[in-house]
Amino acid sequence: MMKYILNDQVIDQDKATIHVSDLALLRAYGVFDFFRLVDLQPLFFNDHIERFFNSADILRLKCPVGRKKLKALILEVISANQIQNSGIRIVLTGGESPNGYSIGKPTLIVINEPINPLPESHFTEGIKLISHEYLRDIPEVKTINYLVGIYKMPEIREKGALDLLFHWNGKISELTRSNFFIIDQNDKIVTAGDGILKGINRKHVLEISRQKFEVEERDLFIEELAGAKEAFITGTTKKVMPVYQIDDLVIGDGKPGKITKDLQKMFAEHIETYLKEN
Amino acid sequence: MMKYILNDQVIDQDKATIHVSDLALLRAYGVFDFFRLVDLQPLFFNDHIERFFNSADILRLKCPVGRKKLKALILEVISANQIQNSGIRIVLTGGESPNGYSIGKPTLIVINEPINPLPESHFTEGIKLISHEYLRDIPEVKTINYLVGIYKMPEIREKGALDLLFHWNGKISELTRSNFFIIDQNDKIVTAGDGILKGINRKHVLEISRQKFEVEERDLFIEELAGAKEAFITGTTKKVMPVYQIDDLVIGDGKPGKITKDLQKMFAEHIETYLKEN
Repeated sequence: MMKYILNDQVIDQDKATIHVSDLALLRAYGVFDFFRLVDLQPLFFNDHIERFFNSADILRLKCPVGRKKLKALILEVISANQIQNSGIRIVLTGGESPNGYSIGKPTLIVINEPINPLPESHFTEGIKLISHEYLRDIPEVKTINYLVGIYKMPEIREKGALDLLFHWNGKISELTRSNFFIIDQNDKIVTAGDGILKGINRKHVLEISRQKFEVEERDLFIEELAGAKEAFITGTTKKVMPVYQIDDLVIGDGKPGKITKDLQKMFAEHIETYLKEN
Repeated sequence: MMKYILNDQVIDQDKATIHVSDLALLRAYGVFDFFRLVDLQPLFFNDHIERFFNSADILRLKCPVGRKKLKALILEVISANQIQNSGIRIVLTGGESPNGYSIGKPTLIVINEPINPLPESHFTEGIKLISHEYLRDIPEVKTINYLVGIYKMPEIREKGALDLLFHWNGKISELTRSNFFIIDQNDKIVTAGDGILKGINRKHVLEISRQKFEVEERDLFIEELAGAKEAFITGTTKKVMPVYQIDDLVIGDGKPGKITKDLQKMFAEHIETYLKEN
């Protein structure tokens, strides 16, 4: 039976439950993080662990185990499960509330979940997005709230899109589960600097981009899309993924751009280097 | 041991758990409803059951039991638990997801939770609110998302307030768990008409208000607060509760207004009538 982590214990799948009085269930109060494994090796392990503890701090949730113990438990579960093409989801809840509103003693849950590979065409041809006016609650925290993204799945699918591109008051922020970038007419890579979840893959892509291209983190506006030469998204399973259309707007020539394809290669090499060195 | 409902069964407290793969936990995808008991009798029972099924429909969640069975199970639990001063919380989750994002088979949970009585001064002197710019996700649905309200509790307490008054683009909507009304300079009762959760207590208060006062459901704006003679909120445990201050703005003379106090009496009588007739 697949192994999970519940607080400080490795447990079997059928024991991986929480009580219904937990604030994550009753009030959606919780944080999480997610990273993938490559040949069972955690990708960007420390980045994700740090961001997880940071999200927890902001929501005033104390994880029942520290960083070192958490990493050790995760490695134990990965080793026990041996699931190729999988990821690790770490969740910290608001805990069993005495009154359905106050924070209790947070519950830590770790799930080793299989990842369905995305179609190759998403990477070679790109994807479509549909825009949606929305600002995530406390955007810099990776909270469990994906209500809107899931609610709008039928419309997203109906339009042949992959996901929503969120914007608020004209400012573009991010997707439900990815960060968003454009390449402008001067070949500059531009992405939102705040009001977003700072993706770990975003972080690494920015790092490698700066070696070769001009890069700017700043407010990005809906009206800039029409003038973008290229657009792409970053994420754990999305890696660097070209965007060829947003609503009815075709980006550039409607094909993955030169810089995007270059970044795809650079990022793949960067990941290989990371895996060798960690 | 206290009784709960899990799907179509009445169970003991220690069995009231959900699996960690549930979409309500992983993605905050779920709906709920809540009503109180008066001498163990459900208040506005049918209104709450209807609204619960309506919320579930909008989120594409099918409840595992129908209305009749749900009501019967709830009455069974109330009778078994015999908890005076309590409420019934009904939750429907997104269910155990195969991939952490798709809706599974929804789990129904019912919790009979004690209600801590609110201080009498809240009703006789009123309360303070602090305003906060925020629009709830899918406002007309009673979703489980209270992240923002809980996150801001320290600030709410620090300012001696009871709750947040949400507004967005200048338009006032509601509190985290109550509806909001003003009485204008012409003694008209005004409340938001859409972009809000339509409270059951709001519905009943509007009904009785119309018998005696002018009432209007329309967009209500932040700048109207300065000219309000009175303000009050409605909710399951709040009933009709006066608001004497919002941020630094004192409403009227800073005391519960005449119409508000009248409505408190009328609502109490309305509830007595309801309980006799149901």
